[in-house]
Amino acid sequence: MTMREMARMTPVILCGGEGTRLWPRSRKACPKPFLQLVGESSLFEQACKRCSDARQFDGLLVVTSNDHAELAAAKAPPGSIMIVEPSGKGTAPAIALAAHRLPGEAIMLVCPSDHHIADSAAFRAAALAAAKLAGEGNLVAFGIHPESPETGYGYIRRGEPIEGGYRIAQFVEKPDLERAQSFLAQGGYSWNGGLFAFRADRFLEELAAQRPAMAELVASAVEGGQEEGPRFHPDAASFAAIRGDSIDYAVMEGTTRAAMVPVDMGWSDIGNWQALRDVLPAGDADGNVVRGPAELHECRRVLVDSDGPRVSVLGLEDVIVVVDGDEVLVTSAAHAQAVGKLRGASGQ
Amino acid sequence: MTMREMARMTPVILCGGEGTRLWPRSRKACPKPFLQLVGESSLFEQACKRCSDARQFDGLLVVTSNDHAELAAAKAPPGSIMIVEPSGKGTAPAIALAAHRLPGEAIMLVCPSDHHIADSAAFRAAALAAAKLAGEGNLVAFGIHPESPETGYGYIRRGEPIEGGYRIAQFVEKPDLERAQSFLAQGGYSWNGGLFAFRADRFLEELAAQRPAMAELVASAVEGGQEEGPRFHPDAASFAAIRGDSIDYAVMEGTTRAAMVPVDMGWSDIGNWQALRDVLPAGDADGNVVRGPAELHECRRVLVDSDGPRVSVLGLEDVIVVVDGDEVLVTSAAHAQAVGKLRGASGQ
Repeated sequence: MTMREMARMTPVILCGGEGTRLWPRSRKACPKPFLQLVGESSLFEQACKRCSDARQFDGLLVVTSNDHAELAAAKAPPGSIMIVEPSGKGTAPAIALAAHRLPGEAIMLVCPSDHHIADSAAFRAAALAAAKLAGEGNLVAFGIHPESPETGYGYIRRGEPIEGGYRIAQFVEKPDLERAQSFLAQGGYSWNGGLFAFRADRFLEELAAQRPAMAELVASAVEGGQEEGPRFHPDAASFAAIRGDSIDYAVMEGTTRAAMVPVDMGWSDIGNWQALRDVLPAGDADGNVVRGPAELHECRRVLVDSDGPRVSVLGLEDVIVVVDGDEVLVTSAAHAQAVGKLRGASGQ
Repeated sequence: MTMREMARMTPVILCGGEGTRLWPRSRKACPKPFLQLVGESSLFEQACKRCSDARQFDGLLVVTSNDHAELAAAKAPPGSIMIVEPSGKGTAPAIALAAHRLPGEAIMLVCPSDHHIADSAAFRAAALAAAKLAGEGNLVAFGIHPESPETGYGYIRRGEPIEGGYRIAQFVEKPDLERAQSFLAQGGYSWNGGLFAFRADRFLEELAAQRPAMAELVASAVEGGQEEGPRFHPDAASFAAIRGDSIDYAVMEGTTRAAMVPVDMGWSDIGNWQALRDVLPAGDADGNVVRGPAELHECRRVLVDSDGPRVSVLGLEDVIVVVDGDEVLVTSAAHAQAVGKLRGASGQ
């Protein structure tokens, strides 16, 4: 297949997450997608850039919230179309809004904008494979090669092979450690990274069949919506009436046409500070990672991230120190998952 | 002995220490004696207050440095006399300066001003006993009841009992842990807390015999010194020529008239952040101590000391977090002793 023959895709960038577990760096005023966590630009910018090759991708469609709209508009490539959700209802309604704004035959590539993908070429190759399966009417999930028995991710169990991928035998909820370990030992399991591909009409068809009430309310919200330059504002009242749900529950688990493309692309959801530490290159032989002014002695696998004050750390292992304005976070790596429950992270 | 009969003493408050191991709270601009580390006032103010009972103590004499003079003058009780050392030469010359400014028969009570003493009554009782021994011509050290096998303190080994105390058999350098443990097991050892009592003339006599060059240079510095209101400035050139030394080396170890009074007064030199944590009352059942805004979860024996920013700590044990302006320190309690070696603490 040459570039000319390959199915073009419309990237649909979902930009809604707060990322409370990356508090205090992630805050309402600058949520996770807009943080420069890895590399020289924000996760959102990197998500846009991954889909910027005009030979493979059409212009971007960004689905975002009122809170994020200005940031997203400022950072999205020129010409991007934006849908501003009046409220957060999960990924299924968000993707349905996008599907309504596209031609039925458009192949959507749904991408979260708060994840890290190290290998863009592998991502594009998987998108190509997914586009082909999507063009044949499948609802395609990216099945990410699991590098460790993560308990924070959902898993996809592979079914029978089809040309260009596999059927999906089962979507598995976040497992406990023992199950996660058995998944890796058995093989045939992938992480569900929230990346999907399908034709717009196929998605709406499945949604109408599986969640008719949601499908109707989204359609009403689109009908009653208003254009504002490149931004589209769905009707708030209709949208507010939706009982929110994820694409996994609302569509993917119920369809008979679920497929997956396997991909190994250095993916992380950077779900907490420990995950970020693991993604960042160590600055010394002891695995320490430092951003901002810092001095470390007898430390191992310590992450320091300071926006100004010098941080001096002595004699600690697997500890994360974050300084952000008037907030200082010090957590063991093992407790990084609990950061979102702190008063600061929830109250802000 | 009634109050009328008891020997009066002149408190000599030594105020020179920087306390680099309590960085970043302790800095050149506000060194350790002037920090409010325990209770409602600074260590210096507490040292002054301990010696404020006019039935037992004459007015204070404060020996301080150029750097500390303004702070000391602002915080010392009205009427205190101050000697401003032109340079730091250790405790022996500092005490000798004070001795020169007092009548020969005055009984000096030498007190560091950067230590904590929980039990002031025990301190005053020991001072009373020390005054009596000093009046008889002895050079008296406070022998502090050792509560643990500290390796950061010098020890005093008790000799034969005398009325009101003991002779000193030996001054022992800071021991390693094994020796410190054997001291406690054997008994008869006390901590040397740097508190001393003697007649002014006896001290100068011993100094002249043991360190004649130092004694002469101090005498010259006093002769060439200048009064400035309640402050006395010794001659800088003479003082600069002194080869500095501690009272322990220069006088106490060499005299045949060394005596000690035993005392158990809840003493700590607050030599580092771990020592401070151990002195402060725990704020919860897990032994955590918090000063300033903080939120702790699943922490044990954590000390947080913040001058403003909120500090959130998760899942750590025996860790100290200090926020002071543009500096953040995070250290294991076990590494607290090494804080003074940090670039921030030494360079400031």
